[in-house]
Amino acid sequence: MLHTKGYAAHSADSPLSSFQFERREVGAKDIQIEILYCGICHTDIHMARNDWGLTNYPIVPGHEIVGQVKKVGSDVTKFKEGDYAAVGCLVDSCRTCSSCNDGLEQYCENGWVATYGWIERDGKTPTYGGYSSQIVVDEHFVLKVADNLPLERVAPLLCAGITTYSPLKEWKIRKGHRLGVVGLGGLGHMAVKLAAAMGIEVTILSTSPEKEVDARQLGAQNFVLTTDEAALASVQNYFDFIIDTVAAKHDLQLYLTTLKRDGTLILVGVPPQNLEINCMGLCFPRKRVVGSFIGGLPETQEMLDFCAEHNVLSDVEIISMSEINDAYDRLLKGDVKYRFVIDMATL
Amino acid sequence: MLHTKGYAAHSADSPLSSFQFERREVGAKDIQIEILYCGICHTDIHMARNDWGLTNYPIVPGHEIVGQVKKVGSDVTKFKEGDYAAVGCLVDSCRTCSSCNDGLEQYCENGWVATYGWIERDGKTPTYGGYSSQIVVDEHFVLKVADNLPLERVAPLLCAGITTYSPLKEWKIRKGHRLGVVGLGGLGHMAVKLAAAMGIEVTILSTSPEKEVDARQLGAQNFVLTTDEAALASVQNYFDFIIDTVAAKHDLQLYLTTLKRDGTLILVGVPPQNLEINCMGLCFPRKRVVGSFIGGLPETQEMLDFCAEHNVLSDVEIISMSEINDAYDRLLKGDVKYRFVIDMATL
Repeated sequence: MLHTKGYAAHSADSPLSSFQFERREVGAKDIQIEILYCGICHTDIHMARNDWGLTNYPIVPGHEIVGQVKKVGSDVTKFKEGDYAAVGCLVDSCRTCSSCNDGLEQYCENGWVATYGWIERDGKTPTYGGYSSQIVVDEHFVLKVADNLPLERVAPLLCAGITTYSPLKEWKIRKGHRLGVVGLGGLGHMAVKLAAAMGIEVTILSTSPEKEVDARQLGAQNFVLTTDEAALASVQNYFDFIIDTVAAKHDLQLYLTTLKRDGTLILVGVPPQNLEINCMGLCFPRKRVVGSFIGGLPETQEMLDFCAEHNVLSDVEIISMSEINDAYDRLLKGDVKYRFVIDMATL
Repeated sequence: MLHTKGYAAHSADSPLSSFQFERREVGAKDIQIEILYCGICHTDIHMARNDWGLTNYPIVPGHEIVGQVKKVGSDVTKFKEGDYAAVGCLVDSCRTCSSCNDGLEQYCENGWVATYGWIERDGKTPTYGGYSSQIVVDEHFVLKVADNLPLERVAPLLCAGITTYSPLKEWKIRKGHRLGVVGLGGLGHMAVKLAAAMGIEVTILSTSPEKEVDARQLGAQNFVLTTDEAALASVQNYFDFIIDTVAAKHDLQLYLTTLKRDGTLILVGVPPQNLEINCMGLCFPRKRVVGSFIGGLPETQEMLDFCAEHNVLSDVEIISMSEINDAYDRLLKGDVKYRFVIDMATL
């Protein structure tokens, strides 16, 4: 077994602290990656604090992982020692169901395996995430990363990037469409950058007037302060699509009114609370509310390649591993532009 | 002006009673229709009783109208005296916006005019519906009806038929798809008949076990009693589409679990209450909740032609005009198979 250093939460109310654990030896199809950077996703906090009641302790969060290949198994074909590589939100799936066959492993009908806080398909081994020195993953779930990119700014693409890229592709959102983005945090800032790189007209819908300058710098053409009635009125029946990144309970009807006929509101924030839909608002004229969840491996690779080609990178603040608990507190206050990334050399 | 007999509600809590009013003279593009049959839609009751707070009294309900052309204006090209003709839920729209140009007059961006309980585009003339001896409508909003059909069974197609036909076409639901239909009333029975005529596999989802025999007779291959856990479990991740005809508050999540990945739940019942959506249920795997509202004039004509070709007709119970108040009470109890139709000769 591979002795591994990491940081873990040991209970819902204790701070994260140093934790030593074992990873499996490198199997025939496995890749051993030395982790260089790991992004901090809001999900990490939900899981560390057991907000969803799903957590088994100790938990090592982290699913925005970039690093360097240290060792490859005998049957590995995609990677060699020294390559840069990335791991996102999932590390296994059944690979036989229709979703897996469609390259949508995140919707695996027999149970995908999350990068941390989950149980491997052997039914017993817990998964530990990227707040750690190394990780061992089957090559099918490892992504290639271009040599010339700043890796710390690539890490957040593995969750925030693919979560917003996938619906842009699934719904064929393109130049000529008007896209609204609700919320300008980790997900929202990637939605703006990706959509702008695709030539899409982007409008940020926000309750925070101070975000306008940043929204425009990130690539948004328009900014609508949703508490300003006149501003909101100016975008009634305006958008073809909305990507809604808000992870807390909120009023969908306000955003539905800004969609054109046959417009689509795409939920990617996945609030734990139910959201209400106004049926008249959905029918007169007809509109759509749809979900989307990260992305499969082929699409994640496509996204990384797109970002390399168009120089789309996350805006990040680098922290050392020991600053993790402060970073969680600041993230909960929205005090980050736009993603914390841990420099794993500090572990 | 054309002196017209009808039945009207004069307040939210008074029974409908005889009412005399004037209709406009036949203009150059107008058609005067002698009404032979008028279906009773649940909307008629909502409006008569001011359930939505929209009603101005007196109100003459009725938007499932079939009859015979008595007179045509000088510029009318589509109809001649003696033709059978039908009028549905709308009698005017702006005819210049993108929705009107797309033949989707029901989504007119400048305000469509409902067949009753509305104000004409002159801003002052109230519209009165089909519980009456005659109606005058611009030919653009009049549908052709085949000579050889039983007209009393055609009338409900004008609302219940088009409301369920439109989403079948919009979402390209076809043979090979699995369709669930929630609720077996006026809308639900038309959804089953239309989908069955298109070769689609239909399953009725119902809380009433006694509806199974009828469901199968109407053309459904399957029946799932949603209060039976084993039956419900048998259709998890099963349907490509669901047409949800329920007009009251209900639990969407129960139905979302029966949709496949990328499956679509189409709301056509338009409950006045907000409905809750479970965001995880919409995202894992991704699914869609969408609205749909009646249909435009070209699609309504297409639906009538489809029904004529495939002998799709509503199951109706004929009543006389004087039985209207009893019929409302029975409809509210679900005591009709499946649509009341008023024989206007009894007026």
